Order: sequence, then C-alpha cells, then structure tokens
Amino acid sequence: MSPERRFIAAVIGSAHATAEEERVAGALGAAVIAGGFRLVTGGLDGVMLAASRGAREAAGYQSGDVIGVLPSYEAASANPYVDIPICTGLNHARNLIVVATADVVLVVGGWSGTLSEMALAWQIGRPVIAVQTTTGWGGRLAGAPLDERRQDVVHGPLPPEGAVALARELVRAPRVPLTGFG
Amino acid sequence: MSPERRFIAAVIGSAHATAEEERVAGALGAAVIAGGFRLVTGGLDGVMLAASRGAREAAGYQSGDVIGVLPSYEAASANPYVDIPICTGLNHARNLIVVATADVVLVVGGWSGTLSEMALAWQIGRPVIAVQTTTGWGGRLAGAPLDERRQDVVHGPLPPEGAVALARELVRAPRVPLTGFG
Amino acid sequence: MSPERRFIAAVIGSAHATAEEERVAGALGAAVIAGGFRLVTGGLDGVMLAASRGAREAAGYQSGDVIGVLPSYEAASANPYVDIPICTGLNHARNLIVVATADVVLVVGGWSGTLSEMALAWQIGRPVIAVQTTTGWGGRLAGAPLDERRQDVVHGPLPPEGAVALARELVRAPRVPLTGFG
Amino acid sequence: MSPERRFIAAVIGSAHATAEEERVAGALGAAVIAGGFRLVTGGLDGVMLAASRGAREAAGYQSGDVIGVLPSYEAASANPYVDIPICTGLNHARNLIVVATADVVLVVGGWSGTLSEMALAWQIGRPVIAVQTTTGWGGRLAGAPLDERRQDVVHGPLPPEGAVALARELVRAPRVPLTGFG
Repeated sequence: MSPERRFIAAVIGSAHATAEEERVAGALGAAVIAGGFRLVTGGLDGVMLAASRGAREAAGYQSGDVIGVLPSYEAASANPYVDIPICTGLNHARNLIVVATADVVLVVGGWSGTLSEMALAWQIGRPVIAVQTTTGWGGRLAGAPLDERRQDVVHGPLPPEGAVALARELVRAPRVPLTGFG
Repeated sequence: MSPERRFIAAVIGSAHATAEEERVAGALGAAVIAGGFRLVTGGLDGVMLAASRGAREAAGYQSGDVIGVLPSYEAASANPYVDIPICTGLNHARNLIVVATADVVLVVGGWSGTLSEMALAWQIGRPVIAVQTTTGWGGRLAGAPLDERRQDVVHGPLPPEGAVALARELVRAPRVPLTGFG
Repeated sequence: MSPERRFIAAVIGSAHATAEEERVAGALGAAVIAGGFRLVTGGLDGVMLAASRGAREAAGYQSGDVIGVLPSYEAASANPYVDIPICTGLNHARNLIVVATADVVLVVGGWSGTLSEMALAWQIGRPVIAVQTTTGWGGRLAGAPLDERRQDVVHGPLPPEGAVALARELVRAPRVPLTGFG
Repeated sequence: MSPERRFIAAVIGSAHATAEEERVAGALGAAVIAGGFRLVTGGLDGVMLAASRGAREAAGYQSGDVIGVLPSYEAASANPYVDIPICTGLNHARNLIVVATADVVLVVGGWSGTLSEMALAWQIGRPVIAVQTTTGWGGRLAGAPLDERRQDVVHGPLPPEGAVALARELVRAPRVPLTGFG
C-alpha cells in the first residue's frame, strides 16, 4: 500500500465574491497546496473558482489536487480549475459533502450557503477557521463557538498562511467526536 | 379533487432544549395547528418533541398533521408524537428536507443544526421567523438578513401566536425565487 | 399519546404508465387505504398519480393519508392528489426516501427508476411485492431474490387486494436487519 | 488553465465479492488507469477494494487517480487504496453519487446495491458496461435495455480490456440527455 493519505482542506465562500475575497481565496488555495493538502470546494464560481485557480497555480500542485463537489449531475458545470468534479445532483445538500470530505474547513467571506456549511461542519466535528476579510460570515463568527456541543471556537480570523498553518496543527489533533442533532 | 393543499410550517430547534424552549415550542406547535398548518420537524427530541406534542394536543389536531423528517432509516427513532415519519437515512442532510418541505420556518432557540437549517431555508427562499426565547440562533439573528440575495430579514423575535399570525401572511405572499449557491 | 402509528405503504412505478398500469395503480391506492395504511409515492405522474387518486377516492381516506416525496423544492410539482408534499431538492436520490419511508413497497410495472427503488428497498430491508401487470420490472423480478443477503424474495405477482393482504402480514413480521453495502 | 479534464470511470460491484470477481475487478482497475481514466468506486471492500488496488498498481497510476465515495462521514472507512475519500454521510444514497461522478459505469458481478447503481446510472444517462463474470446483475442484464427511455443497452459482457476500450468510445459520444423520473 501507498504512503499515508493526504489531508483535504475545504475552502468555502460565496459564488458572488468581492475582489478582496477573490484575492484572499487565491492566496489561500495556493497556501493549501503548499501546506500539503488537497483542496475541496463547491466547484462553482467566486471564492470557489479563485481558490481552485490559486491551487492550480501553486508550486507543488499535481493533477488530482483540486476537487469540486457540484450540485448538479453535470461535470461541465464545474469551474475550469477543478480536476475532479464530484457530481451529486443533490442541489444544496451537496454543501454537507463539501465539509464532510474536508479534514478542516477554511472560510472566506460567506453568504448564507457558507453559513450553512460552517454550521454543518461544526455539527459533524470538522475544525473551522475564518480567513481574514472585511466581509461575510467567516469573520463575523470568528472567535466564538457555534453552540455548546464543542469545546473549541470558529478559529481566526487569520491571513491565508496563518490559517493553513493552524489547519496543519488541527488535522493532527484527535478528532472531535460527533454529538447528535439539533 | 380535494380542496387546496394545507400549508406546512417547520418548527426547528435543538434536541437539547432548555425548559423555556420546550414551553415555547409546545405553545408554538399548538398555534401552528390552530393556524391551519400542518407541522414538520426533524422528528427527534427537545424542541422537535415539544412542538410535536403541542400540535397533538391542540384543539383542531387531526391524525396526519405531525410530520417528522428523520436522519435514519428507522421510523421507531421518531418521537412518539410524530404521525408521519419520513425516513431518509441521510443523517444531517435531512436538515434541508425539513425546511424545503415547509412553506415557512419557525425557530425556537437553536444550536448549530438549527443554524444550518436557517441558512438553508434562506437559500431556498423560505421565510424564516424567530420565536421569542432568551437563547439560541433564532433570537440572535432576528431582524437581520442572512445575506444580500433576499430583500427580507429573519423575522421576529415574536411570541408563538404572533409568529404564526405572521407565518399566515407570509405563505400567501409571492414566493421568493431561488438565487443560486454560495 | 395517540394510538399506534399507522403503517405506510409505497406504491412505485413509472411516470410513463400504460392504461393497464394506471388502472391497477388506482385499485391498489384504494386497497392500500382500505387496508389501513397511509400511502407514499414519488408524487409525480403516471403510476404515482393514479395510486394517489385511488387513495383519495377510497372509502376510508382521511386528509393526510397521501404523501408524495418530490425530487424538487417545489410543492407545486406534486400531482393534485398528494396531501403532504415532501420537498427534497435531491433529484433521483429522493427514490431512496420513498422506499425508506415505507414499511412495505408495492410495485406496479416499472422503468429504471422503479428498478432502482426495488433494489434500494431490498438493501435497506423493506419487503417488496410485485402487483400483477403484464409490464415492467415488478413482474419481471417477482418470485426471485435480488441477492443473497435476504432470505425472502420479491413477492408476487399478486392482484391489488392480494398484495395489500400480504403487505399487512409482512409489516407485522420482525424487520429484516440491514446488512451492509454492495 | 490545464489540459482537458480526464474522464472518470466507475467500477461497481459487491462488497461481498467472489474470488473471480476480485480477480476481474483488479484487472479492470488496472485497465481503467491504462485507458487514461480516473477511477471512482464506493470506497469499501470486495470489488471496490480490488479495483482500487488494481488501479494503484497500474503502470500509469498517479496519486489522485482513485476516488472512493463513502456512505459515512469517516475517511478512515475507505479501503487503503483510495486516494480521495469523498465523505457523504448519506448511507445508501451515496450510490447515486458514485455513478453520477462517472462518465461511464463498469459492472463486476453485483448484488442489490449494484443493481440500484445500474438503474440510477441508466436514469441519469451514463453508459453502463457489464464486465465478464459468471455472477451477478452485470452479466444478467447485459445486452438488454433497462427501459424504453434510452436507445442503447447495458453493454457487454466484455473482458476488462474490451470493456475499457468500449468505455473510451462511449465517453467521447454525445451525452444521452436526461428524461425524467419513474
């Protein structure tokens, strides 16, 4: 058998991104690859596209490093930087698969779809780190817990490199066990 | 064919409810039935159970009025006040089905699972109303939009009867169209 | 609390039904209600509509007896005989929810969607009964097991009343335990 | 941007495989990689494991070529030859994601889970090819259509290399459009 499985980091954020969010997402995508992770996103535009492009252009990038979990059955709906389109046909329920597939979740800005992903990540025990922007749910919830079932908080806000450095620590820590519904 | 379909109201909130939340959820479940709605919840404990019991004990209750959308394949996992257990086997992805099945979503307290449901309801165009409690995500987000893609806000906080009165107005208003991912 | 939960029977079959299939589905929907079950279908046309209409027109029908599990987020996509539209947004993945929600699955004719539902019902331990028609996957697989993990077979083919009589026996038998993937 | 996206082939079959099925699946996994595809499976044991191991040991294999779509939230539930575990938490509903993610679906043996995947693949327009074994649903349905909504059939049965050669042709042909439910 091959060496240990590589960890996967999700970058989540809006399909309707600001210029600042796209810039941050691009740097973050590159830092994710430089940090030894594969990248998973929701596979569409805005933050998802910018992070995927950043990953593709990173020094250590290899084909297969950029995964996109799509709401439709159509691989062609993925942004052009996705190597591996996962077609779900599940519409918004695909949000859960994005964060479940990740060992750690990095947030850039974020509209309501991103908020749902942060909340689902929290519920299923994935660490969540807000990346520094002036906008969106990532920064707004940074530093606080999403409820009492976990001892940690939404980490950050941190710049891209700091977020990835923290991500590397967190994925090596023991997993937070799942604790029910609600 | 029979008369017009009855509207469905979701009551969402934690499986780990406070005594106040359970009291409010019970009154809300009763008000939902009195207001002519069927009730849908996530089918488990805490707020879900209290709302289902309140609905069952309401004057106008008829068998078939209380729906529970379960994370597992087992109808027996529903609380005893659910008439119609919808078995999904989808774990937390069932959250989306709870709010998609509802014409309007009423929030009591709320941990991270509830937060994910509020955000998903917002994304797919369902009106969201916070019901008055001293706890949780419902009250914390009341009065504000969850992002820029809708013109409305998380309504409330309102007491149970006021929340149902508003719900009756909102379900008769034209539906907010869906507006993408992110 | 109220008396014991009523059992739910699924009627599955094609949205593109023959005249014979629609006639059988209508009689079956009526027999399901007469047998004390609620009805669940996929909520759309053809066999689903005919069974729902048959249920609505049955003597013992009460509002809330006809459930439709829809592929979209839109309750308005249900056929007009559905009392309780369950909106999933999951496209074909909603097939699994139809059979998981049922205590027993009745097959009329059937194209590939129906075949997927028979196979999923088998996997999660729901009894499957083919109803007598000259067409489709129900009859074609009647009398045989779908694999070695269960001791029973796809029952039938039986006429509508016989199928419901058998369904009443089977739902009272101990549940077949789930046995993995593949 | 990088060169054209690589096609993805699914290998589906039972977690309870015979020795013959495992041998065929191993050869098929290797042929899939040699044919320029990435591989997707359900990520567990039996045929899924054997195909993933075959892919890993193929000459042209690169890290990232072996995808496993898991029923649980736990990456650790994947067989050790999976590079990219997609965690869904959706239990059997993950079957649909396996075939939707594939551009072409190759069947080895097959119990009821595999039958559900063949039927779902047919419904959403993915070509299906049975690979030569003496067992299971693949061979049993080879040469026939699953319903009238497509003009083609379940191809095969063919030996592994022939199946992959046909797969390469079929993924370059125009996609069969989707045609509804049932």
